[in-house]
Amino acid sequence: MLLHLSTWPEVEAYLGQSQGIILPIGSTEQHGPTGLIGTDAICAEAIAKGVGEQVKAMVGPTINVGMALHHLDFPGSISLRPSTLILVLRDYITCLAKSGFTKFFFINGHGGNMATMKAAFSETYAHLSDFNVKNADFVQCYLANWFMCSSVYKLAKELYGDREGSHATPSEVALTQYVYPEAIKQGFLSENVASGHKIYGAVDFRRRYPDGRMGSDPGLATPEHGKRFYELAVEELSNSYLEFLKGN
Amino acid sequence: MLLHLSTWPEVEAYLGQSQGIILPIGSTEQHGPTGLIGTDAICAEAIAKGVGEQVKAMVGPTINVGMALHHLDFPGSISLRPSTLILVLRDYITCLAKSGFTKFFFINGHGGNMATMKAAFSETYAHLSDFNVKNADFVQCYLANWFMCSSVYKLAKELYGDREGSHATPSEVALTQYVYPEAIKQGFLSENVASGHKIYGAVDFRRRYPDGRMGSDPGLATPEHGKRFYELAVEELSNSYLEFLKGN
Amino acid sequence: MLLHLSTWPEVEAYLGQSQGIILPIGSTEQHGPTGLIGTDAICAEAIAKGVGEQVKAMVGPTINVGMALHHLDFPGSISLRPSTLILVLRDYITCLAKSGFTKFFFINGHGGNMATMKAAFSETYAHLSDFNVKNADFVQCYLANWFMCSSVYKLAKELYGDREGSHATPSEVALTQYVYPEAIKQGFLSENVASGHKIYGAVDFRRRYPDGRMGSDPGLATPEHGKRFYELAVEELSNSYLEFLKGN
Amino acid sequence: MLLHLSTWPEVEAYLGQSQGIILPIGSTEQHGPTGLIGTDAICAEAIAKGVGEQVKAMVGPTINVGMALHHLDFPGSISLRPSTLILVLRDYITCLAKSGFTKFFFINGHGGNMATMKAAFSETYAHLSDFNVKNADFVQCYLANWFMCSSVYKLAKELYGDREGSHATPSEVALTQYVYPEAIKQGFLSENVASGHKIYGAVDFRRRYPDGRMGSDPGLATPEHGKRFYELAVEELSNSYLEFLKGN
Amino acid sequence: MLLHLSTWPEVEAYLGQSQGIILPIGSTEQHGPTGLIGTDAICAEAIAKGVGEQVKAMVGPTINVGMALHHLDFPGSISLRPSTLILVLRDYITCLAKSGFTKFFFINGHGGNMATMKAAFSETYAHLSDFNVKNADFVQCYLANWFMCSSVYKLAKELYGDREGSHATPSEVALTQYVYPEAIKQGFLSENVASGHKIYGAVDFRRRYPDGRMGSDPGLATPEHGKRFYELAVEELSNSYLEFLKGN
Amino acid sequence: MLLHLSTWPEVEAYLGQSQGIILPIGSTEQHGPTGLIGTDAICAEAIAKGVGEQVKAMVGPTINVGMALHHLDFPGSISLRPSTLILVLRDYITCLAKSGFTKFFFINGHGGNMATMKAAFSETYAHLSDFNVKNADFVQCYLANWFMCSSVYKLAKELYGDREGSHATPSEVALTQYVYPEAIKQGFLSENVASGHKIYGAVDFRRRYPDGRMGSDPGLATPEHGKRFYELAVEELSNSYLEFLKGN
Repeated sequence: MLLHLSTWPEVEAYLGQSQGIILPIGSTEQHGPTGLIGTDAICAEAIAKGVGEQVKAMVGPTINVGMALHHLDFPGSISLRPSTLILVLRDYITCLAKSGFTKFFFINGHGGNMATMKAAFSETYAHLSDFNVKNADFVQCYLANWFMCSSVYKLAKELYGDREGSHATPSEVALTQYVYPEAIKQGFLSENVASGHKIYGAVDFRRRYPDGRMGSDPGLATPEHGKRFYELAVEELSNSYLEFLKGN
Repeated sequence: MLLHLSTWPEVEAYLGQSQGIILPIGSTEQHGPTGLIGTDAICAEAIAKGVGEQVKAMVGPTINVGMALHHLDFPGSISLRPSTLILVLRDYITCLAKSGFTKFFFINGHGGNMATMKAAFSETYAHLSDFNVKNADFVQCYLANWFMCSSVYKLAKELYGDREGSHATPSEVALTQYVYPEAIKQGFLSENVASGHKIYGAVDFRRRYPDGRMGSDPGLATPEHGKRFYELAVEELSNSYLEFLKGN
Repeated sequence: MLLHLSTWPEVEAYLGQSQGIILPIGSTEQHGPTGLIGTDAICAEAIAKGVGEQVKAMVGPTINVGMALHHLDFPGSISLRPSTLILVLRDYITCLAKSGFTKFFFINGHGGNMATMKAAFSETYAHLSDFNVKNADFVQCYLANWFMCSSVYKLAKELYGDREGSHATPSEVALTQYVYPEAIKQGFLSENVASGHKIYGAVDFRRRYPDGRMGSDPGLATPEHGKRFYELAVEELSNSYLEFLKGN
Repeated sequence: MLLHLSTWPEVEAYLGQSQGIILPIGSTEQHGPTGLIGTDAICAEAIAKGVGEQVKAMVGPTINVGMALHHLDFPGSISLRPSTLILVLRDYITCLAKSGFTKFFFINGHGGNMATMKAAFSETYAHLSDFNVKNADFVQCYLANWFMCSSVYKLAKELYGDREGSHATPSEVALTQYVYPEAIKQGFLSENVASGHKIYGAVDFRRRYPDGRMGSDPGLATPEHGKRFYELAVEELSNSYLEFLKGN
Repeated sequence: MLLHLSTWPEVEAYLGQSQGIILPIGSTEQHGPTGLIGTDAICAEAIAKGVGEQVKAMVGPTINVGMALHHLDFPGSISLRPSTLILVLRDYITCLAKSGFTKFFFINGHGGNMATMKAAFSETYAHLSDFNVKNADFVQCYLANWFMCSSVYKLAKELYGDREGSHATPSEVALTQYVYPEAIKQGFLSENVASGHKIYGAVDFRRRYPDGRMGSDPGLATPEHGKRFYELAVEELSNSYLEFLKGN
Repeated sequence: MLLHLSTWPEVEAYLGQSQGIILPIGSTEQHGPTGLIGTDAICAEAIAKGVGEQVKAMVGPTINVGMALHHLDFPGSISLRPSTLILVLRDYITCLAKSGFTKFFFINGHGGNMATMKAAFSETYAHLSDFNVKNADFVQCYLANWFMCSSVYKLAKELYGDREGSHATPSEVALTQYVYPEAIKQGFLSENVASGHKIYGAVDFRRRYPDGRMGSDPGLATPEHGKRFYELAVEELSNSYLEFLKGN
């Protein structure tokens, strides 16, 4: 059940039965020579829709742009400042809490979002409490990173070993190939891929990772792999969502 | 050419030929008993993709949530504060300007976004100038409201007359029916629809417009109408985009 | 009745009878070679006082500096950022709402303020509601642009035709001549005045409009014209104010 | 020379000779049963104009609303938050510094503004330096409180002794009577006026100072006194301004 | 009783008897060729602990970094922006007010903090009131500058006369020598020390005060002097604290 | 070498040899019935000083208050909002980067700080880059959590097994006992300690963890254990610091 394809009376009816909502969040950033700039949003959105169908949950609009400041030296990357993203998440959660939602299950496609999301959750709990928003003290946010699902991780290791890397990975590229087979890209992928450096600012990042990949070989990705990753993530996160709902 | 389905080398190549980008922006808000909550984002995104194809322009990620504070008394509506939306737009434009984009063509699906967008453009021009962002003094933003296209307006009047109204209109509902025929909703639409009130706060809005519609009869919408609105908007905004690009 | 020339017990007594207040807002920005930098504030203030007398309404202090970022490349111009102006308006309205005012009638002298003012109104309604300010859900803001009064517009067309232009116009210059006859300026006004360009950043603005005028011939202004504009605006806005008060 | 009654070419010419500007700042707050709500702005503006004439300096627009949060429990009072006022002052100074002004002489009419103004000056120096604003490291702000002029203080003690008090004082009321003789108010002034309490929040303030006065007897004020205060302040601050300009 | 060395049940018990808390605030900034960068924090903390012991009051954690923007051209100095420090103080006071504290006695070691602290107190009173924090209208903040104690001032004049100066003074240096005798520094102190200049931005400050001192001769300081200053300050501020507690 | 006990010429000399600085950051929050409210700051500060001595590095002032919003329902806890803490860290790093520091090694004592610190680092890298701060693109921040040192973790498991828990742990309590043996507290510690719940808002936290502990038995702590934890952490983090310095 997609919020965007629902009417307000349908939302009202849904809230009579459940206070849970799934919110996909990705990023708009370079993913190496062959990865899509929308990779993280595409993966999060696809999986969120899959989970939503499986568990009959409301799925909110995708947050397409996240915290990707370290990728800004590559053209086409867009990022919110952490301070902006905190406000965005605060506004989303506050509005939906006023509607009656209390269980926010974020399906995240980008590692760089995690710290800011956690900071935003803390900021928002305090904000809701200060403003006496309805049920403020019962609002709960859950950060579900699909790429950290144990089943996903295991398959990635099995298929790619060390060539999975940590950015522009074959697993995420595979998932976008499954979702958008018409947008499978070719491009030169040097054997000699940088890896192991820490992440600081954007100029530094590009100095260390000149083609944008971090230790990965996305040339190994196939749409078929993508389908498997998708199914594993949907399965595992559906369970996580149901457990989250049950928690008091 | 969708930014989300492009790689960074493709963006780099594109920037060698054009500095223009189309950014769809909508809203996530109640659209009456039968209109989709995502109506404004759906329309903006569909038209932006159409324009992008016709004029071979880059289309960025859709801003799904805009300024809809006055709709918050209806469940499912989400809004950014104007102050938050200004930061979001500033961050988007600043990042893309650093990439080399200078012509920002926003295709907007929601009247409530207009004031904040214009404020954000002013804030951003000054911000870019202060920070000496590349080509700061040549960055230009254009606000294109599809629902204010003269061809669209003319057809809406022709088809619906006064029953077009000003929110949850048959024209926008028709367009969503064309894009998502699987999500056409039925629901009770009283003949007696409120209209003519000014817009203030959210509680006041619902007091005046109890089912969320503003003078409209979305029951008149059909997917075929939607197709015609879509084509008119794409045609007219494609021309606007090309003229905008030509302007110095 | 000017707030600045009232005592708090007088305000208390006034609030027993009316919850309306008129707030003039202008700008401090270049108005071409012969227009006063305070033009927009002067016009708004004079008309606000006139309306206040006619309808026996409280008139608050003039907001002299507005949103004029695009004029900053001309010396003497001062602007608030949109984000600052939003906070200023929020603070004004919140304080006065705590006093008991609910009907805020802004008489505006500057087109560049309009978008930010509308954004500020939305931000403030939500702010008041969050903080449970007294009567929050009954606070209403009205944006009255004197230069868009139909009677004013008609006279300007009649007197100046196309030479009215859109900035440093003879109509506003005339009004300042009526209010400050001792400050009528002479200066070279080239026949060849720029017009028709869109407004982006400050450097771009001066590039396009080198002497600050936008298509106008302020040399046509006379204090007598100014008196007529003043009287028309006061008349028309007095009616608007009374209707606004009556609205529920 | 009033900025509001000047044209931009006049400002440009002025900047060729001086980089100084006088900025009056007041407040909009209760001044007891008989004092005008605009007292602090009226005094600052009148004196600033007087100084401007005497020393041939540019006088900017009056900041009518300052930091008066502790007066908000009396109707008609308006205040900016300190955080808002800092942004306002930062915006003013930054714009004028870009024009070429470097010497900012604030004539202040309200004790409650002082702390925030000093904080704003510090914030602004750092801001200008960060943004490489022209002559950033030579910008200087001066806080001149007319009511703390030694000549003013001496006369007040001479005329009123302890009945000068510290808010809604006869000296400031006298000055407004001189400037606006048509707005001299009568009202009951209890002999028994509160005094000696510290200032905390607004509710606390009214609890301690029920009619708004702080130890003062404004009934002693006369327009003739006001003229003398005016002249002393203009004389003393003119000297201060000239010394400030000479300082390197 | 140090908050940092207490448990929450101990704080709960304390609150049953007193709602007062002492908060030391200093700065991290150059103090001339021989003064410690932590001088202001060291002094404030030591005196706060002394007062806390004498009056059996809770002492909170030291705010080590304050408002020292004008010292930033000397290496090792750290400053919060005034706007940041306002938020920090607001957060501290709000949290402790929620715990039940209402009497906040700040012992301050740095003149540059004073304006921002006063602004922060005003901002916070309004903030607490808006949010209906428990006992909001009874929260009171007191700014106690140890270096302005009359007994301290008198001794400094007696010991050092004009060579006390106003920054990197022998009195504050003496106090740090008493607290940290192991950190007494030697260094060249020119006889020719700058003095009498106003404080503007950081670059300007260092231009005027090239070695960081303002008219002082810290070479006169001894640990024995420091002990005397310490004892006088503790005595005088203990009395101030007790009177503050008694005030209603 | 403590920044607070250094002079600016000493810092200047240090910067000629190293651009590294260690910054301890803790929290001020309840640590169960017997743990000190300053536990996290005490541990971070002690270890930072130990590391500083061992590797001859500059140690900055301790950030005593961090992100502890979820502990606010226990008296005595103080927290910055994440949005405030981001500004604080940005200000610290920016000031020190202007001095010439580029390697920021944060020794952290509180898990709740981690997300906000990472967000702050990202925000700051972009901030430094925007403002062209000296060496902006070479600034690097390192988050070193002493409690996550492998040697510390191993010893805690060895000594306490599952009774280590995750808040108010015997390991951190032991370390404070070693540092402040005079502040060892006794108190009732129920056998039945809550554990395993997720962390959301403050009211929810206290509902789940009524005495503040999370699965821990701090009654097992001894000062001797504390000494061992201290030595292990100093050893391990000294190595981390030296490797961090070597990294390019």
